[in-house]
Amino acid sequence: GRIPRSLGVELHCRCIKTESKHIGSRIAKAELIPVNSHCDKTEIIATLKTGQKVCLDPEAPWVKKVIQRIMSSK
Amino acid sequence: GRIPRSLGVELHCRCIKTESKHIGSRIAKAELIPVNSHCDKTEIIATLKTGQKVCLDPEAPWVKKVIQRIMSSK
Repeated sequence: GRIPRSLGVELHCRCIKTESKHIGSRIAKAELIPVNSHCDKTEIIATLKTGQKVCLDPEAPWVKKVIQRIMSSK
Repeated sequence: GRIPRSLGVELHCRCIKTESKHIGSRIAKAELIPVNSHCDKTEIIATLKTGQKVCLDPEAPWVKKVIQRIMSSK
């Protein structure tokens, strides 16, 4: 059948491994992708200021702090 | 001078207004963009399951809950 046009959301999990180094200060953008029909885990894909993309573990305490800091920075 | 190649991060604020309706369940992806040299406020751009993009207010309690839920969903 016709492959549904991707709505910018991949049809499978996008992260194979996650970054362990604490790179919070180098993040230019963080994409949060909730569990969906194509991937059974939440994924976070960070774009660094260099343009490089890395996956972050949503359950890692340092990642939770980074997201918290982004949300509360004025 | 040469315009720096955009690293996928806009050179200005991207959100003019934010969505007031509680649309948490319709979010396919949420992009968190920290304060940077081009925009003095954190921005959240959500892509809905329809593909539509809307801006969310990082300081709105319901938005904080949505981000929290995405982060903690297994």
